[in-house]
Amino acid sequence: MPARSPDSSRRNERSHRAILAAAGELLMDVGYAKLTIEAIAARAGVGKQTIYRWWPSKGAVVFDALLAMNEGPSGVVLPDTGDIGRDLQTVLRATVEEFLDPRIDATLRALTIETQHDRDLATRLVERLLGPQMDATVDRLRVAQRAGQIRADVDLRVAVELLYGPIFHRWLLRTAPLCAAYADTVTALALAALRP
Amino acid sequence: MPARSPDSSRRNERSHRAILAAAGELLMDVGYAKLTIEAIAARAGVGKQTIYRWWPSKGAVVFDALLAMNEGPSGVVLPDTGDIGRDLQTVLRATVEEFLDPRIDATLRALTIETQHDRDLATRLVERLLGPQMDATVDRLRVAQRAGQIRADVDLRVAVELLYGPIFHRWLLRTAPLCAAYADTVTALALAALRP
Repeated sequence: MPARSPDSSRRNERSHRAILAAAGELLMDVGYAKLTIEAIAARAGVGKQTIYRWWPSKGAVVFDALLAMNEGPSGVVLPDTGDIGRDLQTVLRATVEEFLDPRIDATLRALTIETQHDRDLATRLVERLLGPQMDATVDRLRVAQRAGQIRADVDLRVAVELLYGPIFHRWLLRTAPLCAAYADTVTALALAALRP
Repeated sequence: MPARSPDSSRRNERSHRAILAAAGELLMDVGYAKLTIEAIAARAGVGKQTIYRWWPSKGAVVFDALLAMNEGPSGVVLPDTGDIGRDLQTVLRATVEEFLDPRIDATLRALTIETQHDRDLATRLVERLLGPQMDATVDRLRVAQRAGQIRADVDLRVAVELLYGPIFHRWLLRTAPLCAAYADTVTALALAALRP
C-alpha cells in the first residue's frame, strides 16, 4: 500500500466530514426519499466517485450521517434522576416523538427496509445505532437494579426489548396511532413487570 | 353494470381459488423472492391478466394466499386451558417458531417491506392478518381478566403489543437470536406486568 502524505490524509478526512455533514443537512432539508448521491456530492464539494469510494450505497452514507448526528462526545447516556420510572417515561416519550417527526420517520423506515436486503447494514444498524441505545438502557436499568428498584432476577437485555419492542411494533406496523399516552402505558406496564 | 351469468361467476370463483392455492403452494415450494406472477398463472391454469384483474402486485396476491392459508373456518382463536400463563407461552412460542421457519420468515419480511411503500397493503395487513391475531389475543386476555388472572385496569390492546412487540423487534431487527427461551422470558415478564 503506498504511503499517504499528511496532506492527502487531511484532505480525505475533510472530504469525509463534509460528505457526512452534507448528507445530514440534506436529510433534514429534503428527506430520505428525495436525497441523491449527486446532491450530497455537490453540497460537499466532492465528486460522486469520492462518495462511492467510501460508501456502497445511499443507505450506507445516510446511516453514517445519522450516526454522526446522534453520537455526542460521550456516546448515548440515559437520564438519571434517581427515579427509574420517570427516566424510562422520559426516554420512551422521546422515542415516540422521534418516530412522529416525519423526516426521522421516513429515514428510519427507509433504513429498516434497507436492512432487510443488506445484512451488512443490518449488523451495523444493530451495532452502531440500536446497540448503543439499548446498552445505555441496560446500564440505566442496572443502576436501578442495584438501587433495588428493579428485580434482581430480571434479564435486562430482554427488559430493554420489553420497553422498545411495543413502541417499534406500533410505529412500523401502524397497528394504532402512536402517541405519548401509549409511551406512558408501555412504561407503566414494563415497570410493573420489572419492579421487585 | 352488465349482469353476469351464473356460469361466469362460478368460473371466476374457481379461478380466484385456483390462483390463491397456486400462490400458496409456490410460496412454500420456491419462497417469496423467486415467486413470479407467471408461475402462479401457469400453475393455476389462468392467464397473467386474470391475476392482474384482481390483484395489483405480487405482494397483494401473496398476502391473500397467506390469509386463505391462515384462516380456519372459525377464524383465529387462542388456546384456552384456563391458565393464561400457559396459553400465552404456547402462543408466543408458536409465533417464534413461525418466524424461525425460513419460508415464513422471508415472506413476512417481504410483506413488511412492501407495507412501507404501499399504504393500502399496510392497512390490509393490520386489518386482515395482524388484527385477527391481536383481537383473538385481546379476547383470551379478557377471559383471563374476568377470571381474575389479569388486572382489571389493564388496557388489553396495549397488553397485546407488550407480548408481540418484543418478539417482532428481535425478529425484524435481529438484535439477538430469536428462540423459545426468549418467548418464555417475554411471556413471564408480560405476565408479571398484567397479573393482579
